[in-house]
Amino acid sequence: MENRIHNFNPGPSALPLPVLEKIKDSFLNYQSSGMSITEISHRSKPFDDIINDAKLRTIRLLNLGDNYDILFVQGGASLQFTMVPMNFLPDAAVADYVNTGTWSTKAIKEAAILGKTTHVAASSEDKNFSYIPKNLDLSADAAYVHITSNNTIKGTQWHEFPNTNGVPIIADMSSDILSRPLDIQPFGLIYAGAQKNLGPAGVCMVIIRKDMLEKIPANLPSMLKYTTFSEKNSLYNTPPCFSIYAVQLVLEWIEETMGGLENIHEINVKKANLLYDLMSDDGFYRGTAQPDSRSLMNVTFRLPSEDLEKQFVAEAMEKGLGGLKGHRSVGGCRASIYNACDMKSVEALVDFMKFFEQKNG
Amino acid sequence: MENRIHNFNPGPSALPLPVLEKIKDSFLNYQSSGMSITEISHRSKPFDDIINDAKLRTIRLLNLGDNYDILFVQGGASLQFTMVPMNFLPDAAVADYVNTGTWSTKAIKEAAILGKTTHVAASSEDKNFSYIPKNLDLSADAAYVHITSNNTIKGTQWHEFPNTNGVPIIADMSSDILSRPLDIQPFGLIYAGAQKNLGPAGVCMVIIRKDMLEKIPANLPSMLKYTTFSEKNSLYNTPPCFSIYAVQLVLEWIEETMGGLENIHEINVKKANLLYDLMSDDGFYRGTAQPDSRSLMNVTFRLPSEDLEKQFVAEAMEKGLGGLKGHRSVGGCRASIYNACDMKSVEALVDFMKFFEQKNG
Repeated sequence: MENRIHNFNPGPSALPLPVLEKIKDSFLNYQSSGMSITEISHRSKPFDDIINDAKLRTIRLLNLGDNYDILFVQGGASLQFTMVPMNFLPDAAVADYVNTGTWSTKAIKEAAILGKTTHVAASSEDKNFSYIPKNLDLSADAAYVHITSNNTIKGTQWHEFPNTNGVPIIADMSSDILSRPLDIQPFGLIYAGAQKNLGPAGVCMVIIRKDMLEKIPANLPSMLKYTTFSEKNSLYNTPPCFSIYAVQLVLEWIEETMGGLENIHEINVKKANLLYDLMSDDGFYRGTAQPDSRSLMNVTFRLPSEDLEKQFVAEAMEKGLGGLKGHRSVGGCRASIYNACDMKSVEALVDFMKFFEQKNG
Repeated sequence: MENRIHNFNPGPSALPLPVLEKIKDSFLNYQSSGMSITEISHRSKPFDDIINDAKLRTIRLLNLGDNYDILFVQGGASLQFTMVPMNFLPDAAVADYVNTGTWSTKAIKEAAILGKTTHVAASSEDKNFSYIPKNLDLSADAAYVHITSNNTIKGTQWHEFPNTNGVPIIADMSSDILSRPLDIQPFGLIYAGAQKNLGPAGVCMVIIRKDMLEKIPANLPSMLKYTTFSEKNSLYNTPPCFSIYAVQLVLEWIEETMGGLENIHEINVKKANLLYDLMSDDGFYRGTAQPDSRSLMNVTFRLPSEDLEKQFVAEAMEKGLGGLKGHRSVGGCRASIYNACDMKSVEALVDFMKFFEQKNG
């Protein structure tokens, strides 16, 4: 048997085992093509079927109208930090950004590098980004409002999206896309690096409302212009075929095995609660995010000392529980429990946490 | 047994079977990590080992001094068309471009979109890009000279690189990188989408001479600046881990199984000659590239009629010889015989071509 661990990595992270098995089984000969999925042409019928199926499944899962398009772009969310203002923020205009941590901060920084004007409509920096701001100071006529829907490093998540009076929200959903149902209406664009909830690294999914495409200036570099991807079904140049294929299989798994977003959300809530139930302000495990802003994807917590944290991570690994170290910029511990991290893994972690507290608490 | 075809796809294209088998065998558990290669952290020891090994093998294969660095960038060669002038062509300066077909033309176009000044130092457009120009009209002080070392669509290849009097050559080597030994001295930067000679789609290798890094303006978007990749060992953000891993295995195969670039070049010459020997100006198979400019990677040819070409491609496919259709922009036939396309496949194609000519010639 394959001796697999319980994988709590923040990204790249666990993938559903049935997806991995499917990739493995057909790896030398994809659907009787006589080729590996890595060897087939991106302009072939089999690949067209893959990319179109991935789009249709996303549309069904999120219940999107035909006023949305799905694109597959390279460069991760980090390139989106540049593409978003390049495409949607004219030099004379302003965009509102809500700063909820490392990734929002980087998004703001990249807009500034382009010489664009941003307004920080709210920030939770005053309390070490431990919460999601409730009151936003929105500009009168912002080009868009940018948010980071889930903050992997700080362990916070937007549970209700702000009312922006019709100004399109642009959201980095890299770490919680397709983890819960979504009312798409306020969103003009959503982007998500695949390597947390969608698949392996190497592709970024972009969900774009079609009226946004009309706002894009004509003279942008082809590979940095959403129009290029929309007009060419993400096949202007050779796309990251393997990653898109794996995303398609993950979407199939969400839809057919997990029964869609309502179901997966219910499981995600249960998983997160099992862990948060072990935490309290003055207990052995202290959650770092404020309770009403806690993430269902990244459970961040501290132990009584850094030595105990080190010991916790090391002993967990010995017991086959991997990836529990907090981000290097904040320390502490973190359990990333994306869609593909299953209940059994969380239960194993809970058992270990109880055991470790009894021994050291 | 896996019923695999002889794969002559132009890219994505054939990969070495031992590489595919290695990926498959460890796909559920990479090196006893308990995780798939698609699930391990890009900031882990196993992934560091992969990326560093890939770099070292490239350095050894090309015999590079320590004044070169190897980067892994997303977006393919098409994004390089933008990054090259963005990083190395100041607004007041000029860069020389040699236009040898579709990809060179796109590179020139993307520089123009940025508002940069390019000078076409030579073009083979007068004869439908069927040759590599010998005489270049170089500018007095160009920032760089850009060439496309191999032209997949037109089937031409530079067999000797131009003397640019010390001006750095920047080359798109997407379709012939590591197919032959190379004197690196004149090159300031080489880029290559992986999906032909290096691995699966989704990563672009950049070989950069370190003094070039000093010319890069400070205020570029992080993900479009070579400095970011060089300073962070291509790990500023999550890289396309799977593609880089596969590239590492292909490099290992070139070095350890194929015995390096001298050997692989010798085989590539033999493979190409087997095919070109079937062609003549007035024969059944007519090569489209001028003999002294013929590519060792993409053998492009015509048959007496378009109907026969269609029939040729279809009958070949029935016999397990795939990917022989010419690029949609030029028609005809094309056999792409990159490093991983082995001698047996070429011999099978030669047999089929003789058979088809006898039947229809």
